[in-house]
Amino acid sequence: MPLLRKDPVTHEWVIIATERSKRPSDFKNSETTEGKPPFSPDCAFCPGHEGLTPPEVLAYRHPQNEPNGPGWWVRVVPNKFPALSIEGDLERAGYGMYDQMAGIGAHEVIIETPEHDKSIANVQPVQAQEILWAYRDRCLDLMQDRRFKYILLFRNHGKVAGASLEHPHCQMIALPMVPKDVAQMLDGMTRYHDYHDRCIYCDMVKQEINFGERIISMNDQFAAFEPFAPKYPFETWIVPRHHARSFIEESRSEVALFASILQDSLMRIGRCLKFPPYNFTLHTAPINQERDCNFHWHLSIMPRLTIAAGFEMGTGVYINVTAPEDAARHLREADVTPDEPIPAERELVESHK
Amino acid sequence: MPLLRKDPVTHEWVIIATERSKRPSDFKNSETTEGKPPFSPDCAFCPGHEGLTPPEVLAYRHPQNEPNGPGWWVRVVPNKFPALSIEGDLERAGYGMYDQMAGIGAHEVIIETPEHDKSIANVQPVQAQEILWAYRDRCLDLMQDRRFKYILLFRNHGKVAGASLEHPHCQMIALPMVPKDVAQMLDGMTRYHDYHDRCIYCDMVKQEINFGERIISMNDQFAAFEPFAPKYPFETWIVPRHHARSFIEESRSEVALFASILQDSLMRIGRCLKFPPYNFTLHTAPINQERDCNFHWHLSIMPRLTIAAGFEMGTGVYINVTAPEDAARHLREADVTPDEPIPAERELVESHK
Repeated sequence: MPLLRKDPVTHEWVIIATERSKRPSDFKNSETTEGKPPFSPDCAFCPGHEGLTPPEVLAYRHPQNEPNGPGWWVRVVPNKFPALSIEGDLERAGYGMYDQMAGIGAHEVIIETPEHDKSIANVQPVQAQEILWAYRDRCLDLMQDRRFKYILLFRNHGKVAGASLEHPHCQMIALPMVPKDVAQMLDGMTRYHDYHDRCIYCDMVKQEINFGERIISMNDQFAAFEPFAPKYPFETWIVPRHHARSFIEESRSEVALFASILQDSLMRIGRCLKFPPYNFTLHTAPINQERDCNFHWHLSIMPRLTIAAGFEMGTGVYINVTAPEDAARHLREADVTPDEPIPAERELVESHK
Repeated sequence: MPLLRKDPVTHEWVIIATERSKRPSDFKNSETTEGKPPFSPDCAFCPGHEGLTPPEVLAYRHPQNEPNGPGWWVRVVPNKFPALSIEGDLERAGYGMYDQMAGIGAHEVIIETPEHDKSIANVQPVQAQEILWAYRDRCLDLMQDRRFKYILLFRNHGKVAGASLEHPHCQMIALPMVPKDVAQMLDGMTRYHDYHDRCIYCDMVKQEINFGERIISMNDQFAAFEPFAPKYPFETWIVPRHHARSFIEESRSEVALFASILQDSLMRIGRCLKFPPYNFTLHTAPINQERDCNFHWHLSIMPRLTIAAGFEMGTGVYINVTAPEDAARHLREADVTPDEPIPAERELVESHK
């Protein structure tokens, strides 16, 4: 018998189609995202090609190196083809019965490493921390711009997941409004808080740890688990076990623990599902609001194993062919031995400080 | 400068990324959906293979033919691998802080024609009417089941759009709740009605006809146009020009006019974009509600030309690389001469009456 399950935050129903239930080996990826060269002569993000991108807005590099040249380990540049424009005013206007405004926003690319064949999943742990720290640094800068109300960090891995460039990168978009899906989360969190006087994500993490059946891994500060009502097979959430509205509140040591569980989760998904294309999104508290809102930041990893079709597009209800308890068991049991021994961490020069 | 436009019904923002604007020839379909054989020996939906599907719930066939044998022109069967189960009670239950219920619903397949190489887009006009009439007949039957609150008709055309079987078919799912996206539409329609005392879709159609720039085609009862804030390039809506809550209110002559503009729109999209994969969804008023709700039924065609990635999945905000005014111009100018002269319409035996 299929199940209908409700996301506790957004109240969206999901169909868990247990009779169609699929194991990891049942998914046939059209794409595996392994096996790239370590350097590509055509790649705008490989070192030595810095002139092919717009000038960097942030780079972690040794101080002896010039900006916009090689010698960096994380580099952030504006998107060459931005979805939104950084210049101008919102110019809200009616158009007959319709509403529009100028597409103001920021669209930046975090180049995760100089190495074309790596990704945030398999770089050295310290490098993964640096990528996330760069995101934090960019948030702190972008939120000074009072026009921006929300910043999303996201990653498209593989063509099927919408990546147009191969070199490992994630993206940030700053928006002039709180987008619909986040507004819906906020609404759900507020309703729960009004009713229970507690944070729904805090309660959820505790319950998941108690139940155990959807837990994938844990450390002192974070838990990785399959949500109760996942839209996608093997969808994985990473949620802080401590209450934190925004990613920018986290210290270096918390970011290190987060980087570690993120790498572990991506490695488990990769090993279990033959390195499938995936997206991840990091949701954090809206910015420049008139008053503080309830939030609890978190990250969602969504492997791209199935296709959303007419039913999903017409209802917002997703059919998920893998029960999250099964997915969690497979991911818990995945082999996470590193491909090669982790080398000694190189000295970090925090040139950005 | 990109534009942010708001859907007048759902209040969802969409980014029209005008600087990335793409013409029809800029889209490279991974798939073209033409060139199938007229009959396939392996196809469960081809005539003579009726035993490979669950027993039919409706068929338009000559009265001398037995059910579940050949001789039909439209056939409706339960989905062999249904997302929801027709048997059982909802059994709403808590599970810790979570909510779930049994996956009760109906999931049916409308086999559009015995011909493996045709589709609703290019069958004879009378056959297209019959397909839509079969949908109406099934609605009238399914709505007798008081457990069901919403019925969606949808079509997945091509693998990229989620079709797993080649033979032309559309699907219906009856749900035990009003799904999120429809609830959002209802909410928007009600707010507009409360404010203006008019139906938002009635106003929208009139305005689109007045403005003209997004209109694709029209007849006495229907208009096809690009919406002001389309999520997808070349997204096309067909909306009745008369107010009608539900598809089941339409007469034979209105269904004929609707079939005609639907075939015309699909042909324009096919010719313009090299017969791309697409989905369509038909939204109609919820059923078995405690009181009647505002609604105005309509159909949305969504060609699958781009990939929703992390940004869309994390925000619900879509980036559309083709301005709807440009898309409408291309679709208006598309050649809609039939491939072959339309043969005389065969006599219809309305065995279902």
